[in-house]
Amino acid sequence: MERPLIAVTMGDPAGIGPEISIKALCNSEVLRTSRCFVIGDSKVLRQARKFSKITGIKINPVKNVKDCKFIRGKIDVLDLDNVVISKLKKGKVSAQAGRASIEYIDKAVELALSKEIAAITTGPINKTAIHKAGFHFQGHTEFLAKKTKTKNYAMMFVSDTLWIALVTTHIALNKVSGAINKKRVFSTIKLAHETRVAPRIAVAGLNPHAGEGGIFGREEERVIAPAILEAKKLGIDVVGPISPDAVFYLAKGGMFDIVVAMYHDQGLIPLKLLSFNNSVNVTIGLPIIRTSVDHGTGFDIVGKGWANPSSLIQAIKVAAHFAKS
Amino acid sequence: MERPLIAVTMGDPAGIGPEISIKALCNSEVLRTSRCFVIGDSKVLRQARKFSKITGIKINPVKNVKDCKFIRGKIDVLDLDNVVISKLKKGKVSAQAGRASIEYIDKAVELALSKEIAAITTGPINKTAIHKAGFHFQGHTEFLAKKTKTKNYAMMFVSDTLWIALVTTHIALNKVSGAINKKRVFSTIKLAHETRVAPRIAVAGLNPHAGEGGIFGREEERVIAPAILEAKKLGIDVVGPISPDAVFYLAKGGMFDIVVAMYHDQGLIPLKLLSFNNSVNVTIGLPIIRTSVDHGTGFDIVGKGWANPSSLIQAIKVAAHFAKS
Repeated sequence: MERPLIAVTMGDPAGIGPEISIKALCNSEVLRTSRCFVIGDSKVLRQARKFSKITGIKINPVKNVKDCKFIRGKIDVLDLDNVVISKLKKGKVSAQAGRASIEYIDKAVELALSKEIAAITTGPINKTAIHKAGFHFQGHTEFLAKKTKTKNYAMMFVSDTLWIALVTTHIALNKVSGAINKKRVFSTIKLAHETRVAPRIAVAGLNPHAGEGGIFGREEERVIAPAILEAKKLGIDVVGPISPDAVFYLAKGGMFDIVVAMYHDQGLIPLKLLSFNNSVNVTIGLPIIRTSVDHGTGFDIVGKGWANPSSLIQAIKVAAHFAKS
Repeated sequence: MERPLIAVTMGDPAGIGPEISIKALCNSEVLRTSRCFVIGDSKVLRQARKFSKITGIKINPVKNVKDCKFIRGKIDVLDLDNVVISKLKKGKVSAQAGRASIEYIDKAVELALSKEIAAITTGPINKTAIHKAGFHFQGHTEFLAKKTKTKNYAMMFVSDTLWIALVTTHIALNKVSGAINKKRVFSTIKLAHETRVAPRIAVAGLNPHAGEGGIFGREEERVIAPAILEAKKLGIDVVGPISPDAVFYLAKGGMFDIVVAMYHDQGLIPLKLLSFNNSVNVTIGLPIIRTSVDHGTGFDIVGKGWANPSSLIQAIKVAAHFAKS
C-alpha cells in the first residue's frame, strides 16, 4: 500500500510551526510512513530553516499537490504566499499571521474533502491572532467542524500511556457545568468507542470525588450516569462516573483504554504530565482525518532553533496510522 | 529530642481506617520517628486486627494519654468506646459511624490545643456519614478550622514529587469561579510560602491555557495575577498564573517547590497520578499540626485485609517532621 498523502499546515507564521514543520518533514519515520507536504508560505519556511541552522534541505514551493516530489532532502510546500515577511514579527500576535494560519487550514480541508489527500496534520495556531483576524472560533477543532458541517465531533488526545476524549474543550471553567448534557456526554463516549476495536472506556465525573453522592454537585447523577447507561445499552464497554483524581491513575495502570474527560484541563493535566510534547490531538467524528500537535505556538522561543518537533512527528505518524486503517 | 507525641484518629469505623491504623502503628519507621496512639474504639480495632490476620499485636485501651505505653507490639488506643459493634456494618454509610469519627477528631483537637500532643494525623472519614450524623462540613479541613477558630487556612498535599496547596477544596466545580478571589489566592500563596524555607512557588491559572489572554475567562487577570503581585511585594518567590496543563509538568521537573492550584481536581489529579497512596494531606494555617491520609474510607475493600497503610505511614512521618521543625 502506498504511503498516505498528508498535508501539514504550517500554523501561525510567527510561531514555532514553520520550524517544527521543517524538522518533522526531515524525520526518517515520517518519510517512511507517509508522503508529507507543508501548506504554508515558502518565504517563512526559508527564514525558519535559516535561524534553525538546518542545512542540506531544500524548500520546494509548488502550486499544486501533483507537483510535490516527496524526496528526502526536499520539503514540498503548497505555497499560499500569504505573508508579507517585512511585516511579520517573530513571537508576536498579529492579524496577518492569524489570517494566514486560517488560510492554510482552509486549503487543507478543501483538499481532504475532495480526497486529494488522506489526512491533515495541523501545526499550532494562536487563538488571539485568529480572533484579531476576525475568525471567532475557540480553536482548530471547532473551525474544522464548521467547515465540514459536522455536528457530532470531539477532541481526543492520544499518547503511549493515555487516550483521552473531551466532552468540552476551550471554554472558561465556569461555563463547563452548563455545557455538559446527556446528549453530549453520550456522543463523546460513542465517538471514542469508534476509534478502536472494542476499547474499555472510563468516564470521569465532573466534581471532586465524582460528586460524592451529590454533596459536591449533581451533574454525575443528572447527566453523566444516564449517558453511560445509554452507551451500555448499545453494548459499549464503559464504566463511570469515576472520581476524577483516580480515573487517570487507573487508566495509566492499564485498566482502561480511553478516558472520557468532562473539560479541557481535567484531561490535559494528566496527559501532559505523562506525555509532554509526545501526545497527539485527534479530532474524532469529522468526515476527514485530522491530527494535531498538542502544544501552542511557543512565541517565547521562536527564532532560537530550540523548538521540539516530537509532537508534530507523532501527529503525522498517528494520522498515517488512521489513514491506513 | 524525644519522639513527638502524635494522635492518629481512627476515621470512619466502617471504613479501612481501623485496619490501616493498626498496620501503620506496627511500622518500624513510625515507631522510630514518633510516639503514636490511636483515638478510636478498641472493639472496632480488635475486629480489624482479626479480619486483617495481624498477629502478635495487642490492643491496649487507655482512658488517658499518660497511660499509653508506646511499646512495640502494643497499640495504645484512647478508647472513646463509642461504637455499638452489633449495629456497625462494614463498608456502609451510617450516622453512628459518622458521629463516632467526628468524636475522635474532637478529642484530638482538644488534646492538641492543650499541648498534650504535638500533632494529629487523621484517618479517612466518610462525608455522607458525617452529614447523616448532622455535621455539615465539607471535610476534615473545614471542621478543624472551625474548631480552632482559624480563618486563614488551606489544604496542602505533600509527596516526594509535588507539593500542592489548594485555594478551594471540596466544592462543586461550578462553584469554583465564584469562590476564588484575590484575598483567598494571596492567603494561600502566603501560607504555602510559610511551610518551607524560601520555596519557589508557581500559581496555576483557573481556565484552559490560563485564559489565553482573556478568551477563555478573565479570573487570571482579575483575581490571580493581582494576588501574585501582592505576594511578590512581600518578597515571596512566586510566578504565574501558568497554564494548568503545563505547571505540574514543570514542577515535577524541579522548576518549582510548590504549586498553588485553584480547585480540588486541578491539584489532586496530577498529585494522585504521580503519588497514588503516597501523598499526605497537611492543613496549613491552623494553630495545630495536622496531617492526613490522601484517600477515602475504601468501603469497597473493608474486611478483606487488603488496605494499604502507605499514605497513613507517610502522614504520620510528615506530622513528626513538622512537629520537630
